[in-house]
Amino acid sequence: MYAEIIASGTELLMGEIQDTNSSFLASHLPALGLEVRQATLVGDDLEHYTEVLERAWKRTPFTFTTGGLGPTVDDVSREAIAKVFQEEVHVDTQLLETLKTRFRERGTDMPPHNIKQAWLIPSAVGLPNRSGTAPGWWAEKNGHVIIALPGPPRELYDMWEHEVAPRLRERVHGSVVLTRTIKTLGLGEALVDEMAGPILKSKNPYVGIYARPDGIYLRVIARGTTREEASGLLRPVEEDLRHTFQANIWGIDDETPEESVGALLRQRGFTLATMESCTGGMLADTITNVSGSSHYFKGGIVSYTNELKVASGVPAELIERHGAVSSQVAEAMAAAARLRMGADFGIGITGVTGPDELEGKPPGTVFIGLAHAGGRESSQQRFPANNRTLVKRRAVTTALLALRRILNAAS
Amino acid sequence: MYAEIIASGTELLMGEIQDTNSSFLASHLPALGLEVRQATLVGDDLEHYTEVLERAWKRTPFTFTTGGLGPTVDDVSREAIAKVFQEEVHVDTQLLETLKTRFRERGTDMPPHNIKQAWLIPSAVGLPNRSGTAPGWWAEKNGHVIIALPGPPRELYDMWEHEVAPRLRERVHGSVVLTRTIKTLGLGEALVDEMAGPILKSKNPYVGIYARPDGIYLRVIARGTTREEASGLLRPVEEDLRHTFQANIWGIDDETPEESVGALLRQRGFTLATMESCTGGMLADTITNVSGSSHYFKGGIVSYTNELKVASGVPAELIERHGAVSSQVAEAMAAAARLRMGADFGIGITGVTGPDELEGKPPGTVFIGLAHAGGRESSQQRFPANNRTLVKRRAVTTALLALRRILNAAS
Repeated sequence: MYAEIIASGTELLMGEIQDTNSSFLASHLPALGLEVRQATLVGDDLEHYTEVLERAWKRTPFTFTTGGLGPTVDDVSREAIAKVFQEEVHVDTQLLETLKTRFRERGTDMPPHNIKQAWLIPSAVGLPNRSGTAPGWWAEKNGHVIIALPGPPRELYDMWEHEVAPRLRERVHGSVVLTRTIKTLGLGEALVDEMAGPILKSKNPYVGIYARPDGIYLRVIARGTTREEASGLLRPVEEDLRHTFQANIWGIDDETPEESVGALLRQRGFTLATMESCTGGMLADTITNVSGSSHYFKGGIVSYTNELKVASGVPAELIERHGAVSSQVAEAMAAAARLRMGADFGIGITGVTGPDELEGKPPGTVFIGLAHAGGRESSQQRFPANNRTLVKRRAVTTALLALRRILNAAS
Repeated sequence: MYAEIIASGTELLMGEIQDTNSSFLASHLPALGLEVRQATLVGDDLEHYTEVLERAWKRTPFTFTTGGLGPTVDDVSREAIAKVFQEEVHVDTQLLETLKTRFRERGTDMPPHNIKQAWLIPSAVGLPNRSGTAPGWWAEKNGHVIIALPGPPRELYDMWEHEVAPRLRERVHGSVVLTRTIKTLGLGEALVDEMAGPILKSKNPYVGIYARPDGIYLRVIARGTTREEASGLLRPVEEDLRHTFQANIWGIDDETPEESVGALLRQRGFTLATMESCTGGMLADTITNVSGSSHYFKGGIVSYTNELKVASGVPAELIERHGAVSSQVAEAMAAAARLRMGADFGIGITGVTGPDELEGKPPGTVFIGLAHAGGRESSQQRFPANNRTLVKRRAVTTALLALRRILNAAS
């Protein structure tokens, strides 16, 4: 069954802020049996908005709008729905009471112009907003539904989870789409294509290959009349691909390498310490983005100068002999981090982010060292160097994957 | 003059990846005199794409498409334009030659299906692609233009800068829109509103106030018939607002606090060192995202444990007496970082990112310490704690702003 999304807001159209609500909805609708056919961004102009909304409503069973539920004259979602349905708005006494209570709880009176947020039309019911003042609308006419959601992402997510998704689960019957994204690093697109083999010709599940800045993604899409059927189609293909690409997979769906490394470390009671130069703290930052990382992360040193490397335990003669950007120094950094902070595993990263070369090594050159009770190892990487942050990001992902490989091998 | 944007790709519609190209174009078009009226996301379905494109082309002088220029059957942008213009595609010998050369340079033959990328129609010319194989199209019929751009952001940016923007500058005459975004932190929306004063009633330039996760933004929009006129209207208002909000401004447009701190440090020959716990490396990572940061950043310690704090020079008795999350320890961390790494300025950050409280302090509590030749200082912050990464981000921004205030005061 088809769905459309309409996001409104002149700030979105000016490119001032990124519209993340549409992709949130787009990624959550397929699992409920709704396929997004079009997503449109419009300004706060009532006439144009109404025209776009009317077209969507006429041809699509479910239309989702985001934004335009605030109290100002620029917030035109309610007016647009009323115009499309040719109905008059009225103040709903129950919504008004809830609204006044919400403001009272904040220790203030409801500003008069907020009364718009208590509006309804005969064909709409209000959807409670747990995190803000603007209720959403579930409006339905001629068997087609318009669901009006607030613009602030936090309010939209809450309303989706508590109000919209449960209603859709009851309402939508038909085909359910499940997807699984398998993210690999270190293999070219052509090789992935070859390794994936004949499954690429299958229609359901469909398997697509996508090149991304952080590697090659395989996306499996399965359709069924029920969740169980779709899931039954998806599972064997997913298992097959997981098996084929094992060593190069760094994440499934939203899973990140730092999460999988963290889970392995915690599970086995191991600890980790880092010393990094060219990644400038991004490695430690990434590791500590995982809730509970204090259980296994001992700490890190951002040794942006050679003096700090030496003061932190890297032998000065190694730097003199091989240069700070070398496999020897990467390994020594890993070993020093491990030793100094009393951790089971140490990671060392040294390299050149650019724009200039360093010690005669071109931007994008990165050495990754690992130290553990069993010894040391290192690898040399050469990343495309057109973007400083991307070089850092790739170095961090590669380092975490290298550690994960060791943790998996040790099991 | 109006413009529309159409982004294509089933992955975008599935919410798998975020469409950043539309907001890139949307933020760059107004300065060239084009106002975006609508941005639409469609799948790879030729029929639906053609329908949306035809409507845009008929009513809008400039339509931009992104994506759909690859070599596969799913890449339908060229076909859609040909259908809308009712023209036949042919292989352009010159484009084909360029394409073959591009593949030869990569040490490979052109795969046969890439020949699509050498297609043209009589009403289109090719736009060279410096970073990929797919040329863009500048297609024009009945005085309305369709500009087809590649989907990979890097290729799109390059083509925009070198091919599209210069052509638009020659072509578009009319009203020019300039915007300036002034980003503040530490003031509530109501206070910003009050401080901004009567300028908020002005129509041109228009000043809007927006609440964002990283503070309150003021956006100034000025329109003129020429760039000079718009700029002349914008400048005095911008200066006025800069003066009014001085101490709370952390960035103008895309400018970041790490860039402005870095520029001040470099200008004055000062150096910086950090010791951070709850931000877990994000402070050092943010500082080193600035190209040239090795000129002033000595390094950082991510002291995720109390042992590492003590080993790095924070007195153990301070932690015992006041707790690791305290202003005393934040100041001691700043001082120890400064001393250990021989820097002019030290920043220390300690706090609770959550989800659990620490030492009886609730998530979102952060202490920021600063140390310099003139002494030490600290501040306590209480950030909303619903998101771990956001607490880290706010702590980092607040710390950099605090340092900037000192650097500005010292001038």
